[in-house]
Amino acid sequence: MPSSPNLYVYHRGEIIPLEKAFLHISDLAVQRGYGIFDFFKIINGIPLFLDDYLARFYESARLMHLPVLLTPDELKKVLYRLMAQNQIPQSGIKMVLTGGYSEDGYTPAAPNLLITQQPITLLTAAQVQQGIQVITYSYIRDLAEAKTINYSTGIRLQPHMRAQGAQDILYHQNGIITECPRSNLFIVTHDNQVITPKKDVLKGITRKNVLEVAHQKYATVEGVVTLTDLAQAKEAFTTSTTKQILPVVQVDDQVIGNGKPGTVTLDLWQDLLSLEKQQALVRV
Amino acid sequence: MPSSPNLYVYHRGEIIPLEKAFLHISDLAVQRGYGIFDFFKIINGIPLFLDDYLARFYESARLMHLPVLLTPDELKKVLYRLMAQNQIPQSGIKMVLTGGYSEDGYTPAAPNLLITQQPITLLTAAQVQQGIQVITYSYIRDLAEAKTINYSTGIRLQPHMRAQGAQDILYHQNGIITECPRSNLFIVTHDNQVITPKKDVLKGITRKNVLEVAHQKYATVEGVVTLTDLAQAKEAFTTSTTKQILPVVQVDDQVIGNGKPGTVTLDLWQDLLSLEKQQALVRV
Repeated sequence: MPSSPNLYVYHRGEIIPLEKAFLHISDLAVQRGYGIFDFFKIINGIPLFLDDYLARFYESARLMHLPVLLTPDELKKVLYRLMAQNQIPQSGIKMVLTGGYSEDGYTPAAPNLLITQQPITLLTAAQVQQGIQVITYSYIRDLAEAKTINYSTGIRLQPHMRAQGAQDILYHQNGIITECPRSNLFIVTHDNQVITPKKDVLKGITRKNVLEVAHQKYATVEGVVTLTDLAQAKEAFTTSTTKQILPVVQVDDQVIGNGKPGTVTLDLWQDLLSLEKQQALVRV
Repeated sequence: MPSSPNLYVYHRGEIIPLEKAFLHISDLAVQRGYGIFDFFKIINGIPLFLDDYLARFYESARLMHLPVLLTPDELKKVLYRLMAQNQIPQSGIKMVLTGGYSEDGYTPAAPNLLITQQPITLLTAAQVQQGIQVITYSYIRDLAEAKTINYSTGIRLQPHMRAQGAQDILYHQNGIITECPRSNLFIVTHDNQVITPKKDVLKGITRKNVLEVAHQKYATVEGVVTLTDLAQAKEAFTTSTTKQILPVVQVDDQVIGNGKPGTVTLDLWQDLLSLEKQQALVRV
């Protein structure tokens, strides 16, 4: 249990201290891993790209047949109330919607909505300059557009990943790349095309923002990316809300490009930081 | 929440009333759907094939890197203590082992063990004589030998399944059949071979028992079963702990055999009931 004193959470209609937030074991998250979530970050007290994250949250809920019992406006009010109570200028907010307290342990009931807020640390420039190594694994998420709570594969593979000296896992099926457990993948070709898988991926908000900034300077493609494309790429990187842009310098035994973060990657990283900084200055 | 008064559960080291059994929301089951479970049935107060179910429970835990903090003997003592307290002669016991209260919402911690017991109703002969209709869906469980709590796909498809007038879902990948969300599949060929998928399936205890009784009278095969094999089969059925043997009479739009439960299926059903009855008479 996180040992964070004085943190408040939204729990089934009420704002209560984190340490008092429990769910009955009949909840379908506990019984069947059934639920969806979303996660956005707050910089200088401002939630970034909130409408995008909320739209995805409602879409995941719809795809998994879990009604959100609050309207987007009501949910926003709850989020701002929680932020006001916690007062953590740089943080992440996670909204989890579970399958609810099920009579038979299989049929969804009235969903339980939980909202937690925790401080976050962004990557340093030194971490970005170092890049990461990833390992590949043959796996595809069912209905990948839905941000479900099912991370069985990603979590199970953590010890194996660490044993390989890697920091992330890249999913593919028959050599066609989809995504990492908690981030999207991009490659940069030798003619500076910026390409990311289109199908069977979670549509990351940072992925969307990177496509947007990349489009200003480079050719961008949402399409098919194979393991061969990745091996032959000049650069590669992952994108996510907390890690923003993280260069990939090695995939299994294959060094990408010259084994260092590429110039296009670092350029996009700067542009993404600028876009986010801009958002963090606009109080809505 | 199940409205069953006077039910006791084992919850993190203690036997307590079901209505008081809660988990903190930091548990990895809630945050990431991370956990494993197993389920066995009790007839005339006797747990059937308990050692098989316990072996599978420990194996699932091992595969998902979740230590069971009790030895099999200690766990058995807990199970008998719970059975003695609940006194439900015909029931099912579910053991759930979750990822535990995680500091960062991703890394497994000390697992939480929950054991619940509920009355069960077995199928009537009339239900078995009617058989069921199944729909097919392209999906494969990652590490299918582990009985994880992840039922996202099976639960999400329930409304679609009901809309098709079906009672179960059959997973396949590229036409190769694996299993149903909560049961195994068998086919019977026109020359009375009894065949069940060997790879990428949960190794059901009822599946094992059916193979054992079938082997006395028929040729049995654990191998590859395609959708075409199923369409051309004389008979088909599913097996599970609660449903025992359930004839499949239609797959999508395809009627199997003559659209009625087959003679081999019903013969195996009788033999399985005898085997279970025999177990239920042997007090261990």
